[in-house]
Amino acid sequence: MTDRIAAQLRFLTEACKLKSVQRATTLCDGSRRENSGEHSWHIALYAWVLGDQAQADVDIDRVIRMLLIHDLVEIDAGDTPIHAAQDAAAQAKIEQMAATRIFGLLPPDQAQSFRALWDEFEAAETADAIFAKSIDRVQPVIANLETDGGTWPAYHVTAAQLEARVGTKVARGAPALWAALKQRIDAWFAARPPSFE
Amino acid sequence: MTDRIAAQLRFLTEACKLKSVQRATTLCDGSRRENSGEHSWHIALYAWVLGDQAQADVDIDRVIRMLLIHDLVEIDAGDTPIHAAQDAAAQAKIEQMAATRIFGLLPPDQAQSFRALWDEFEAAETADAIFAKSIDRVQPVIANLETDGGTWPAYHVTAAQLEARVGTKVARGAPALWAALKQRIDAWFAARPPSFE
Ligand SMILES: [Ca+2]
Repeated sequence: MTDRIAAQLRFLTEACKLKSVQRATTLCDGSRRENSGEHSWHIALYAWVLGDQAQADVDIDRVIRMLLIHDLVEIDAGDTPIHAAQDAAAQAKIEQMAATRIFGLLPPDQAQSFRALWDEFEAAETADAIFAKSIDRVQPVIANLETDGGTWPAYHVTAAQLEARVGTKVARGAPALWAALKQRIDAWFAARPPSFE
Repeated sequence: MTDRIAAQLRFLTEACKLKSVQRATTLCDGSRRENSGEHSWHIALYAWVLGDQAQADVDIDRVIRMLLIHDLVEIDAGDTPIHAAQDAAAQAKIEQMAATRIFGLLPPDQAQSFRALWDEFEAAETADAIFAKSIDRVQPVIANLETDGGTWPAYHVTAAQLEARVGTKVARGAPALWAALKQRIDAWFAARPPSFE
């Protein structure tokens, strides 16, 4: 076996561990929590299907590649639910170390290009990264809407918090998509008893 | 919500069910069987990382898209393990009906283009589809090698069967990759007692 293939297979076998990282969100039928591997598949598909909702001219193939690797650092760093309290700076440092270790398993040229794409996603400055971040934020919202609020009650999430934490980021990359979801979100919260919030 | 976004979200919510389709193969640590959603993520990553092992000039972005949707029909048709007895013609008919229903949830232009890409994968005639099929065959072999034979003993798989059912297809799209894996496969079977086969 060549060194190159051996390194590629080591990386791919390590990546398998992402299937064992649990997320806060459930499957669309609420039957269990989803893992970050299947989540990564689902949002790559989201980016493709919803590509025509992007704000700017984005390269959907680059977005798909970003989303395929965007959560790999969770193998070391775990998933941080958006509505949970967290130390953002400490978490970012752990994720940087995870990226160095995990992408470092690849042959050097691929280690460099995969890491550069992950850095671009994290920085959320290019049109591709902004759209990728929108899609990453949107999928849990839909999973929660499909399961009567899903994890929102457990985290005591309000409509205003959703707008601030999720809406602004989704609208930045896909405004029509957020407008469409906001209708459904407002309808769901309007049907809750006022004491819920 | 526009009709277009509504149709796109219906398709994406339906696709979520792929995370509940169980495959014969396990995770790389053997802890549980994997589902077809996380499998689809993993082999899209395989295609990207191993793209430079392709036999012909392939468009890796098209291969990634093929692999993201290649198993969606299993939502209706289930997974058919390669080493299990099966009625191939009956299974193909069920999968055709599944493709019509599931891709038909998309807006018409996307329904047509997604279906065309799935048909191309199934036909396994273009360079992109041949490489995609190689990658789809390779991942379970690696999962089994990582877990001391994995599901091979349960299905009474022999080295000759692997060569015939898997090797020929992998070698068609990625010959150097199969040569590398064959070394590991032969070493694994050589270490088994002769009565195993
Ligand atoms: Ca994420």
